[in-house]
Amino acid sequence: MDAALVCYPHGVAAATVAELRERGARVVDLSADFRLRDRGIYEDWYGEHAAPELFGSAVYGLPELHREAIAGADIVANPGCYPTAALIALAPLAREGLIADVVIDAKSGVSGAGREPTRATHYISADENMTPYKVEGHRHTPEIEQELGGLGNDVTVTFIPHLVPLAQGELVSCYVRPARDVDDGDLAELYDAAYAREPWVELRLGAPGVIEVRDTNYCRLSVHVDSRAGRVIVFSALDNLWKGAASQAIQNLNLMFGLDESAGLR
Amino acid sequence: MDAALVCYPHGVAAATVAELRERGARVVDLSADFRLRDRGIYEDWYGEHAAPELFGSAVYGLPELHREAIAGADIVANPGCYPTAALIALAPLAREGLIADVVIDAKSGVSGAGREPTRATHYISADENMTPYKVEGHRHTPEIEQELGGLGNDVTVTFIPHLVPLAQGELVSCYVRPARDVDDGDLAELYDAAYAREPWVELRLGAPGVIEVRDTNYCRLSVHVDSRAGRVIVFSALDNLWKGAASQAIQNLNLMFGLDESAGLR
Amino acid sequence: MDAALVCYPHGVAAATVAELRERGARVVDLSADFRLRDRGIYEDWYGEHAAPELFGSAVYGLPELHREAIAGADIVANPGCYPTAALIALAPLAREGLIADVVIDAKSGVSGAGREPTRATHYISADENMTPYKVEGHRHTPEIEQELGGLGNDVTVTFIPHLVPLAQGELVSCYVRPARDVDDGDLAELYDAAYAREPWVELRLGAPGVIEVRDTNYCRLSVHVDSRAGRVIVFSALDNLWKGAASQAIQNLNLMFGLDESAGLR
Amino acid sequence: MDAALVCYPHGVAAATVAELRERGARVVDLSADFRLRDRGIYEDWYGEHAAPELFGSAVYGLPELHREAIAGADIVANPGCYPTAALIALAPLAREGLIADVVIDAKSGVSGAGREPTRATHYISADENMTPYKVEGHRHTPEIEQELGGLGNDVTVTFIPHLVPLAQGELVSCYVRPARDVDDGDLAELYDAAYAREPWVELRLGAPGVIEVRDTNYCRLSVHVDSRAGRVIVFSALDNLWKGAASQAIQNLNLMFGLDESAGLR
Repeated sequence: MDAALVCYPHGVAAATVAELRERGARVVDLSADFRLRDRGIYEDWYGEHAAPELFGSAVYGLPELHREAIAGADIVANPGCYPTAALIALAPLAREGLIADVVIDAKSGVSGAGREPTRATHYISADENMTPYKVEGHRHTPEIEQELGGLGNDVTVTFIPHLVPLAQGELVSCYVRPARDVDDGDLAELYDAAYAREPWVELRLGAPGVIEVRDTNYCRLSVHVDSRAGRVIVFSALDNLWKGAASQAIQNLNLMFGLDESAGLR
Repeated sequence: MDAALVCYPHGVAAATVAELRERGARVVDLSADFRLRDRGIYEDWYGEHAAPELFGSAVYGLPELHREAIAGADIVANPGCYPTAALIALAPLAREGLIADVVIDAKSGVSGAGREPTRATHYISADENMTPYKVEGHRHTPEIEQELGGLGNDVTVTFIPHLVPLAQGELVSCYVRPARDVDDGDLAELYDAAYAREPWVELRLGAPGVIEVRDTNYCRLSVHVDSRAGRVIVFSALDNLWKGAASQAIQNLNLMFGLDESAGLR
Repeated sequence: MDAALVCYPHGVAAATVAELRERGARVVDLSADFRLRDRGIYEDWYGEHAAPELFGSAVYGLPELHREAIAGADIVANPGCYPTAALIALAPLAREGLIADVVIDAKSGVSGAGREPTRATHYISADENMTPYKVEGHRHTPEIEQELGGLGNDVTVTFIPHLVPLAQGELVSCYVRPARDVDDGDLAELYDAAYAREPWVELRLGAPGVIEVRDTNYCRLSVHVDSRAGRVIVFSALDNLWKGAASQAIQNLNLMFGLDESAGLR
Repeated sequence: MDAALVCYPHGVAAATVAELRERGARVVDLSADFRLRDRGIYEDWYGEHAAPELFGSAVYGLPELHREAIAGADIVANPGCYPTAALIALAPLAREGLIADVVIDAKSGVSGAGREPTRATHYISADENMTPYKVEGHRHTPEIEQELGGLGNDVTVTFIPHLVPLAQGELVSCYVRPARDVDDGDLAELYDAAYAREPWVELRLGAPGVIEVRDTNYCRLSVHVDSRAGRVIVFSALDNLWKGAASQAIQNLNLMFGLDESAGLR
């Protein structure tokens, strides 16, 4: 057996990955089990790990950050939907250590809340409503901080998700206090350098809408200077079921097996 | 003495208010013409004022801040929908000078974009979409800053509105860097003191959803400490057509004419 | 003497009503348990009746048809949402025996499917979808036929409901093959005679939309002649949670206790 | 020049088609200009024809009815969205002369109302609403009658469209009074014979939902006997922007140029 996509909840996923690894399969795991590299942080947010011998051995599967490592990995931890949007938005700043402080206000359609019928996902609860959730702490927070730190920018982020009445789509608004002054020219240079050759990241002058990337593997960004308040603002839109989950898993599999990275994604 | 509600666009509104004042009417103006007190700032955002002799003579019509002044006013400038939500959220902190810095991420239903049929308000543009707008600067920004400053807390705010697929409802998420450490107890005390006796402001432990205040004059708040990042987060939900516009105008009229402040609002 | 509103599912409701009757309470029952007068038909659609001694003793609670009987009733069976819309639409024709044949195509918002979270009511199932349901037979069919027959017009109806992506609201389109030729003038006369003095039925020239009656006790109608095909078409819009359920129950209670029929409904 | 797709409004389209024909192009016209074959009926519904010399020379572009004629045609009149859904639903009955009478109750998403921003297509008009429209007569009616007649079943149809709050998708519910008794077995035979080999028509046992065919060229059907009322009911779901418009045009082009009929459609 060669390749496997694992789509179980955390805990169950780790055990399954361990089994598949014993049989020699290379795995993309869509759960959170292998995304974190600090065991204590994992346990704080998720509890006991189900395959501790493998903990820390995976590559974080964001191709825009770790393309080469993914190509050689046996376990790729497919990122959460919010971290995908936030990290693509923030990576060019983080590489320069530019993020002194950041607020990430995220908005997601209802499919982000899972397929289980619950009171919150009932049509008459979600329709014509919007509300923040997991205000006390969302598990995607440590994932974002880990990867920003890995790029050389240690920062404690404020991350708040909101539920919004649409089926698919995620918009992340990042409000950055920059470590030093930057202007539009600096930002254009940084973001062009990072993404001009990326097949699945698009830079736009105007703010993106989620409908534009629906049912695609694209992440669409715009970057703005708020010179009055001395802030950099980055908007990032993607489809949480695609680039935020399944299609990014395929992108990772393509990389692991030396295929065209975009095969099957257009 | 007569009363008038003026519901024209800025510019047209000022001229109409001037005419009504000459006839002796006391006026609640729903436009932006009399909300600002700095003439230069008004002109930066709106251009020439159409009744300069009256500029600066109105009371800003947020009952929770200016109840007594409204009662004696001849012109009441009914606040914008976003400033209503944001100022009710932030006033208890501003009175203590606690806001060192603030990001206001606002989300509004489509009625906030006006009744004119446009490409942006067409069902197939708005449905299943969400997008930031007026990223380069929204006219409600100076209104928010003026009133926070009036409470003794001068601060330059970052304010970004987003269009979300529902008809009515507005949710404002405020991310405050506090000027000094505060804990849950401090906040409970401040917000209870401010709002325990307010008829149209409700404090909640959990984050509010806009459906809960639809078709009402209520503004519903929750306040949270993000101790990891050292931030205070305040959520504020209202109906942009009610507390954010028409029903607040009635609340103001009631105050001006010595009626029960809540008459006609339940 | 006491009053009770019973809001249980069929079966449970009948037992509760029996108990309340023993204590002397007059009851409005919102279930289907007392709507039908033919015991065999009840059993075909619902199974064993839980209070057979009371079966057939209730008045069908559609004020527009049975106002006087409701006033004197001990048990009032509050009609289903679809029968309310359909019967108000069709009664003026049925009284004249004008319905030779009728197709009732009904469309309902998701709240019509109940509050239980299920796969069908999950936001991502209902959003951007529409679908017929209970095509093999919906329990509201015998209720409609019984009441049309009671008005002197025995007819077997085709009744098909559809689930549509909105929270509240019900639109019923009735396609009648008339027993004899009628023109616009005849229909205007019939419908005006039936409803000109009804407080909660509104006749319109143009077809009604459900948003117009949302959160109200109104049923709004329009009547049209399709002279090409020789048909009469009646559209009927109401709010399934109001006139189709709770507010009609209040209207019935008002009638039973000699209060103003519209008390508490405006 | 070889092939052209014409996407103009009626009138403008006919003139453009005439010009393209003079240059020798074979044309698929998406307007109504060449769908009808009776000049008087065309003028009743649309007024003067702009290219009378070509009137009547087109093939009606429903591949499921006219595949061979389309292959040899110089002008193909792409059907309206509602006629596509209704004719695919009714053709197997019409070929047997089985339709004594039919009511077609159609429901469409807002894109069916066109891209122009109008009061009706404004988000706050369409959201949480549903309403019949063009009750006095919709231009798709003669198209449906012409094609049913062409299959040997002359019948005057009642066709009523409704606007429903979703972006794309169309559901057509057809209520047929059959000319003679038919049972489930007869219908299964007729529909299987008609569609078992059709690439873009799917028969289902349960009623179809529009989300299932969104962004596809599929038309999905279910057929039911209402034995109580002696009726045959056919539901037909498609995407009005795809099988109801653009992708069916491509299907026609493929046929005209001898390509795989499904090229570019999966």
